[in-house]
Amino acid sequence: MGRVTSRVRVRTVSAGVGTARVDTLAVEEPLEIRLGGTALAVTMRTPGDDFDLAAGFLVGEGVITRADQVRTIRYCAGATDGGANTYNVLDVALAPGVPVPDLTLRRNFYTSSSCGVCGKASLEAVRIAASFDPAADPTTVSPTVLATLPGALRTAQRVFDRTGGLHAAGLFTPAGELLCAREDIGRHNAVDKVIGWALREDRLPLAGTILLVSGRASFELAQKAILAGIPILAAVSAPSSLAVDLATDANLTLIGFLRGESMNVYAAPHRLDEIDDQSVNL
Amino acid sequence: MGRVTSRVRVRTVSAGVGTARVDTLAVEEPLEIRLGGTALAVTMRTPGDDFDLAAGFLVGEGVITRADQVRTIRYCAGATDGGANTYNVLDVALAPGVPVPDLTLRRNFYTSSSCGVCGKASLEAVRIAASFDPAADPTTVSPTVLATLPGALRTAQRVFDRTGGLHAAGLFTPAGELLCAREDIGRHNAVDKVIGWALREDRLPLAGTILLVSGRASFELAQKAILAGIPILAAVSAPSSLAVDLATDANLTLIGFLRGESMNVYAAPHRLDEIDDQSVNL
Repeated sequence: MGRVTSRVRVRTVSAGVGTARVDTLAVEEPLEIRLGGTALAVTMRTPGDDFDLAAGFLVGEGVITRADQVRTIRYCAGATDGGANTYNVLDVALAPGVPVPDLTLRRNFYTSSSCGVCGKASLEAVRIAASFDPAADPTTVSPTVLATLPGALRTAQRVFDRTGGLHAAGLFTPAGELLCAREDIGRHNAVDKVIGWALREDRLPLAGTILLVSGRASFELAQKAILAGIPILAAVSAPSSLAVDLATDANLTLIGFLRGESMNVYAAPHRLDEIDDQSVNL
Repeated sequence: MGRVTSRVRVRTVSAGVGTARVDTLAVEEPLEIRLGGTALAVTMRTPGDDFDLAAGFLVGEGVITRADQVRTIRYCAGATDGGANTYNVLDVALAPGVPVPDLTLRRNFYTSSSCGVCGKASLEAVRIAASFDPAADPTTVSPTVLATLPGALRTAQRVFDRTGGLHAAGLFTPAGELLCAREDIGRHNAVDKVIGWALREDRLPLAGTILLVSGRASFELAQKAILAGIPILAAVSAPSSLAVDLATDANLTLIGFLRGESMNVYAAPHRLDEIDDQSVNL
């Protein structure tokens, strides 16, 4: 199993004066995910929780939604000439009867869509791939609880403080209880690891949960939340236009700039309770 | 042409009190890059400088190194049923005689590498793909100049201050002159846009230049710098372990945590001049 951090010699320069010291870095290594022996994707990730990463990746692609749809996940021995195991190649075998997807599905979707490649086609692709529908999830959360989540995630981040180089994702209950936290050099990998953990615990759909990410909220992260059945996505930083469009379309509550007791709600604000609303017209 | 920012209604909640206002977001839209009519990649990007993005993407994949290797880049009209142009599909036609690459090359490389999928194979892949070798580039830069670059890039960022959602990349001379700055929702896209601009200006290899990125330095960004012949890569935030390994291997100067007059040098420190070195043994 690879390491999560790595120590290197570094020259620190401050006001023109250089000194040598040892620095701790986040490890980045390629992981090839195979499906039934066929290479599906190579992602640059931080080693650790690789089975969760592979499982979550497949949830995000709309391939699986239940633990019993996965027969085995294993590292491929023999991935090198000498037969050694690099722990950088994983093979996922689906259970009998689970359809192996057309791996070019998404690109084909784009090129056959009536509107071509555009934001609208991206939203349609998510709708087609999704098995769950968080739109009707009655979960609500109070801004007071939301305000505590970034601190709780940060506390759970074991590596960031040492490296400054890792994204984090955390899954919470509306009471603010942390269910699962994962770190990775790639923000999408951190989310895949959380959702893959939930898949392997057979907790999907993740109704009644809140997914918090340490950075920005992109279209891809909103897609992953929706495909896992998560009704509330919160980000410490900004969302993109297409993440807001998708959240609005899917009735996913999308919160950005969650900092202390301040936050912006970009979509489905009805899931925030206890707000003394001073809006004239929202 | 798509827009770079988008305005949305947002509910801001602060200390339990909600108010409505209008917020500005960074636009995210898919871009399909085709090579000679064949779909090569779909990337989520911020519209604008799309020709530079496509050109830079192809430099980073080792496909082209000179402007005259590109015959045309054009938006595909007729990408929709109605024949309308979404400006989200680009086709790059290479000049006669320029070999069209095997698009599965990198994955094939991994699976045929003697060490399997691992960091060492990733470094080898860059060595094989690179036409330029920044290793012997004699360029040096002073820490005093480096300290000015983040401010200069931030000043050139037109959109970040409004959205908080865009990565930036800037290309500088050792005197601190900004040659080109680009923003994008994706950090790799911002770098592709800068390098694509340089390709189309026929400035490759980018000997004697410094590439600054607003976030972290990953393996992928170090790869892009090397394939464009850039000798110095600086990042405002942390590098990954594999970025340091690659930079060390390729003799690329890699600077992280560039903040004010303080910075860490992770590889090839000989390109920093005027350092009063107080190291006992580096």
